[in-house]
Amino acid sequence: MSLNEAQRAEIDQLKAQTSQTRRVTVPALEEILYDPLPVLDHGFVRVIDYMGDDAAIVQAARVSYGKGTKQVRQDAGLIRYLMRHWHTTPFEMCEIKYHIKLPIFVARQWIRHRTANVNEYSARYSILDREFYLPAPQHLAVQSKANRQGRGDALEGDEAARVLDLLRQDAERNYAHYTEMMNEGADGEPLDTGREGLARELARMNLTLNTYTQWYWKCDLHNLLHFLRLRADDHAQYEIRAFADVMLDTVQRWTPAAYQAFVDYRLGSAEISAQGMDVIKRLLAGEAVTAETAGMSPREWRELMALLGREG
Amino acid sequence: MSLNEAQRAEIDQLKAQTSQTRRVTVPALEEILYDPLPVLDHGFVRVIDYMGDDAAIVQAARVSYGKGTKQVRQDAGLIRYLMRHWHTTPFEMCEIKYHIKLPIFVARQWIRHRTANVNEYSARYSILDREFYLPAPQHLAVQSKANRQGRGDALEGDEAARVLDLLRQDAERNYAHYTEMMNEGADGEPLDTGREGLARELARMNLTLNTYTQWYWKCDLHNLLHFLRLRADDHAQYEIRAFADVMLDTVQRWTPAAYQAFVDYRLGSAEISAQGMDVIKRLLAGEAVTAETAGMSPREWRELMALLGREG
Amino acid sequence: MSLNEAQRAEIDQLKAQTSQTRRVTVPALEEILYDPLPVLDHGFVRVIDYMGDDAAIVQAARVSYGKGTKQVRQDAGLIRYLMRHWHTTPFEMCEIKYHIKLPIFVARQWIRHRTANVNEYSARYSILDREFYLPAPQHLAVQSKANRQGRGDALEGDEAARVLDLLRQDAERNYAHYTEMMNEGADGEPLDTGREGLARELARMNLTLNTYTQWYWKCDLHNLLHFLRLRADDHAQYEIRAFADVMLDTVQRWTPAAYQAFVDYRLGSAEISAQGMDVIKRLLAGEAVTAETAGMSPREWRELMALLGREG
Amino acid sequence: MSLNEAQRAEIDQLKAQTSQTRRVTVPALEEILYDPLPVLDHGFVRVIDYMGDDAAIVQAARVSYGKGTKQVRQDAGLIRYLMRHWHTTPFEMCEIKYHIKLPIFVARQWIRHRTANVNEYSARYSILDREFYLPAPQHLAVQSKANRQGRGDALEGDEAARVLDLLRQDAERNYAHYTEMMNEGADGEPLDTGREGLARELARMNLTLNTYTQWYWKCDLHNLLHFLRLRADDHAQYEIRAFADVMLDTVQRWTPAAYQAFVDYRLGSAEISAQGMDVIKRLLAGEAVTAETAGMSPREWRELMALLGREG
Repeated sequence: MSLNEAQRAEIDQLKAQTSQTRRVTVPALEEILYDPLPVLDHGFVRVIDYMGDDAAIVQAARVSYGKGTKQVRQDAGLIRYLMRHWHTTPFEMCEIKYHIKLPIFVARQWIRHRTANVNEYSARYSILDREFYLPAPQHLAVQSKANRQGRGDALEGDEAARVLDLLRQDAERNYAHYTEMMNEGADGEPLDTGREGLARELARMNLTLNTYTQWYWKCDLHNLLHFLRLRADDHAQYEIRAFADVMLDTVQRWTPAAYQAFVDYRLGSAEISAQGMDVIKRLLAGEAVTAETAGMSPREWRELMALLGREG
Repeated sequence: MSLNEAQRAEIDQLKAQTSQTRRVTVPALEEILYDPLPVLDHGFVRVIDYMGDDAAIVQAARVSYGKGTKQVRQDAGLIRYLMRHWHTTPFEMCEIKYHIKLPIFVARQWIRHRTANVNEYSARYSILDREFYLPAPQHLAVQSKANRQGRGDALEGDEAARVLDLLRQDAERNYAHYTEMMNEGADGEPLDTGREGLARELARMNLTLNTYTQWYWKCDLHNLLHFLRLRADDHAQYEIRAFADVMLDTVQRWTPAAYQAFVDYRLGSAEISAQGMDVIKRLLAGEAVTAETAGMSPREWRELMALLGREG
Repeated sequence: MSLNEAQRAEIDQLKAQTSQTRRVTVPALEEILYDPLPVLDHGFVRVIDYMGDDAAIVQAARVSYGKGTKQVRQDAGLIRYLMRHWHTTPFEMCEIKYHIKLPIFVARQWIRHRTANVNEYSARYSILDREFYLPAPQHLAVQSKANRQGRGDALEGDEAARVLDLLRQDAERNYAHYTEMMNEGADGEPLDTGREGLARELARMNLTLNTYTQWYWKCDLHNLLHFLRLRADDHAQYEIRAFADVMLDTVQRWTPAAYQAFVDYRLGSAEISAQGMDVIKRLLAGEAVTAETAGMSPREWRELMALLGREG
Repeated sequence: MSLNEAQRAEIDQLKAQTSQTRRVTVPALEEILYDPLPVLDHGFVRVIDYMGDDAAIVQAARVSYGKGTKQVRQDAGLIRYLMRHWHTTPFEMCEIKYHIKLPIFVARQWIRHRTANVNEYSARYSILDREFYLPAPQHLAVQSKANRQGRGDALEGDEAARVLDLLRQDAERNYAHYTEMMNEGADGEPLDTGREGLARELARMNLTLNTYTQWYWKCDLHNLLHFLRLRADDHAQYEIRAFADVMLDTVQRWTPAAYQAFVDYRLGSAEISAQGMDVIKRLLAGEAVTAETAGMSPREWRELMALLGREG
C-alpha cells in the first residue's frame, strides 16, 4: 500500500476531527475509522462511516420507541434467533461505508453483488494510478486438475519467475503506452507539447486487468454478510477473499453479536439436503449406509462424507 | 399524535445520550433527532439515525481520501451539476433511518417503493394500537368529475358528518371485535378466562385500512428524493403527501445543498417532450401555434399550455 | 372463486389463441396457461406468461451460442450442482408472470418481497369487488401458547360460529358503507342522485383487511424459489402458504429439474450450525452428547434434536 | 464479428425450431430472434427470448382478466399517458433476454445498471477468445479541451497510426503471454507438456481492457428504457452507445408504441428547472431576459439557451 503524503495528511485530518452526536456510536469501530487497512500489495479497505450497532438490530426487530434493548445476553439471544431463522430485515438497519482500493479483475467479481451503493473512480475523467497487482510467490498457483475453477500448488523456480516477469513487464509497458497515448503525465501536464492526446476514455482500454482502481462502497449489514459468506469462503478466489477477510474483522468490531451469530450459523454451518438428513438419521440409528443405498450421486456422497468428517 | 408516558420517557432517554464521534455530523438534524414530528391525526415521523451530509456527496463523487470538499460554493455547484445531469450514485452515499406511524392504506402505497429497508410492527406477534385515521373536515373530498384518480371539493354539512360517523363507528366496532376474537386486552390479559382466543394473525383481518401501523424505514438519499418527488407531488394522495412534506423538511436540515438542487431540478422542474420543445421554439420565434399545427393530442396540448401558464 | 361471465369469456378467448414461435416453450405449462387455479375461498393464481425452461438455466450457465444443453441427465446434474452451491444467477434467466387474487392482509406480507414486478388493482381509480376471505372452520386456529407467532388447534362450536359471524358481518357492513360513502354502485352509477360521493381513495379506508385485491406479479425463477422457500414453509401463515403451494405446482410443470433440486436442497434441507455439525460428528462417534456438553442453549438444542428426529 | 462454424450451426438450429404457443408473440421480433446483430468490430447483440408486447403493458395497467386491450389507438394513448406521468410499473411487465459480446471496459460501465440479470462468461473456468476492440479511425478521438469527460476531433495521420499500433501490439502480446502462462491453447491442450500452467483465474489479469467478453443479460422494459436513455445519449461513451443504438432498434420491433412514447418523452425531451421554466415564461411574455436577470449561473444559462436553440 502506497499512500502519498497529501493522502496521509488528508486521512490524518479526518481522524483528528471529533464531534458530539446523539446517534449510537461504536468505540471499537471509531478506533480504526478512516485507517487504510492493507490488502494485497497495493490495496486497502477503509471504513469511512457507519450507522447503527448490535442494539439497532434489536431496536428494529422490536419496532421500538426507544433503544429497545434489554440485557446484553437477551439481545444476543434475539440476534442469534433472527440469524438462525433468516429474519433478515433487522440486519438491514445497520449500514457501513468503505473506501476500497482493489485490482480491476477483483472489482469485476465484486460488482456482481447488486445490493450495494458504489462510486468508482472514473477513468473517463481521471488518470489511474500506476499500480498493478503482482501475486506474492505463494499465491502463484497452478490450475487445479480436479476442479476447473480451482487452484493447485504454487509454481516454483524459473516458472514462477517467468510469470512474475511477464505480469510486471506487460503491466508497466501497457501503462507507459496509456500515458503516451493520452500525452499526459500523472500531473496532468502534456508529455509532448507538439501533439494532441487520445481521449482518456479510450486510452484506458490498453490497461491490464491487474491495474488498481478504487471506489466508495456502501452496504447494509445483511447484504454485507451475504457478500462475506460467498467471498470469505474457500471457493472464492484468493484475491477477493483477502478483502473479505479484512472486512470481516471490521464487522467483528462493529456488531460483535451479529458477527458471532454469522460465524456460527452461516460461515461455519452446513446446508444438508433432504437426502443428506436421511443419511444422517440412518447412520445415527446404526445403519451402514452407502452411496448406493442413500440414492446419492458419487459427487453428492463425497461432499456429504466430507462434511461429516468421514471417509467416503 | 398520542404517545404514552413510557414512550415519551424512552424518547427522552435517547435524546439525553451524547457521544464523541469522528464521523461527520449535522447539528441541524441532531436537534430534532428522535423527536416525533406529528403527521395527520395520530401519525408521526421520527429521524432515528443518519449517515453523511452534503460533503459526503462531494467526497464520493471525487472518490476522495479525505473530505474531498472545497469551498462551500463550489461544493454546492458540483451537487447542482450532479442533480441536473442525473449522476445519481453520489447521492446514494447518504443514508437516513426513520420511525414512522401511518395508516395501513398509506403504508400500502408507500411500500411500493422497493429500494428501502423496512421493519414493520408485526400483527402476527403483537396487538395493534387502537388508533384510526379520521380525515379532518377539509380533507373529506368528493370524487373528482374530471379525473378518475383525483379529489374535488370537500363534503359539507350532514354528508360530511355522516361519513365521519361511519368511518369512526366502523373502525371502533371492528377493533372491539378484533380484541374480542383474540380474547385479549391491550395488556395481553384474557378478557374472558373461560375461553380460547383466535390467533392474532387471523383476528387482524377484521381491522379497517385506516388503522395505524408503524415501521422503521431506512433509505439512501437518492431513493428518498425519488420517493419524495412522487409523493410530495400534487398528484399524490393527500394522506401520503402529508408524510412526504414532513420528510422533505428533514432533508432540508440534513443536506441543504442537495435539498435546494432537488427543489430546483426535480420538484419545480418540468419535463417537456420533443414535440413540446418544438412548440416552445416556434412560439419564441413568434409563430402562432395551435394543438393542430403542433400535432399534439388535446390532452397533451392542455398539459403543455398549463406548464407555460397560457390558456390553451 | 367466483368469476363472472365476462371474465370467463375473456379467459376463454386467451386460451383459444395460438401462435407460432421460435422461443422455447413448455407444453406442460401451456396446458394451464391463463386458467384460474383456485386458492382459499375467492382467490386464484393464474399463469399469464413465462420465459425460459430448464434448458435456459443450462444455456445461461454455459453462456452458450445455441441451446447449450447436453443429455437431459447431464443438464439435471448441472442444475442440481448450481442449486447446491448457490450459483443463483442462471436461475434468474427464467421469468414467470402471474395474475393473483388475494386478501389484502396476505398481499401485505407478500409485497415485502421486493424483487418482483407488481401492478396492483388500484382502489384510487376503481371499486374493489365485494369479496372477503372467511376461513374454513378447520383454519379458525387459536393463538399458540408455545409460540407467539403460531397457531394452535381450531376453535369449535359456538366460539367458532361467533368468530365467523363477526368477520362476515363486519366485512359486509363496512363494504356497504364503502359504497354508500362513495355513492356509487358496482356499475359505477350513483346510488343516490341527490348527493356527491366521497373520493374513492378515501372511502377505501373503511374496508377490512380480508377484502380481496388482485395484482399482476412477475418474478424470475431464483427469486420466486426464494419466496416459495419462505412462504411454502411451515412457519408461514396458512393463508399465504395456500398460494405458495399452488405456485409450487406451476414451477413443477414449468422447470421440473429446477423444481426437484429445490425440493431436495432448499425445501427439505436443513441448515446446521457449526456447533450442530460438531454435535452430529460426536454422536456418530458414539459419544453421548447433551445440551450442556454441546454448549448450546436449550432452544437451539431442541431445534437440533427435532431435525435429527431424536428426543431432546 | 467473427463466429466460427460451430457457433453458426448452433444459431441456425435455434432459428429452425418452431413451436405452438398460447403466449403473446411479436412477429417482427421473432424475425431477428437469435441473429447476431453486429456492433463495433467483434461485438454483437442477440435477442434470445422475450415476454410480452405493447398489449401486455395495457393489460397490466388495467389488471385485466383477458387481453385488456381496446383499439390500437386507445392503447397507444394509454401507453403515452403512462410514460408521460412516470407510471413505470406496467412497463416492467415486459421482459427481454440478450446474448451480448462486448469489450471488458464497456462491460464495466454497463454492469453499473443493477436491475438486470446477468450471466457472464467466466474467465475463472474458461479461456477468453483472442479478440480485442480496436477503434475505427474516425473514433480515435482526442481528449476534449472543454469537457473533462468528452471527446474532441479524431486523431489523424501518424498519431492515429501510432495509437492503433500500440493498442494492437499490446493486446496481442498480452494475450500471447496469457496463454503462455496458462500453458494452454484455445483447444485446452497444453502448449508445452513439460510444465504446469498458471491458474486461469490468475492468468486473466494480464489481459487488456479491450478484450472481448460476453454475457446473457435479461431486463424488464422499464429498466431497459432507463438504461437506453442514459446510454443512447450523446453524453455516453461512443462504444457503449453503439450497443444501445442496436438495442433501441430491437425495442422498436418489440413494443413499437412504448418505443415511440420513449422517443418523444424521454430521448427527445428536456427537463427544464424551475428557474428555466420561469425564463421561458418571461421570454414568451416578450421580456429580454439575461443570465443575470434570470439568476442563473453562466453554465446553466448556456445549457438552457442550447435547449431553446438560441444564442446565449
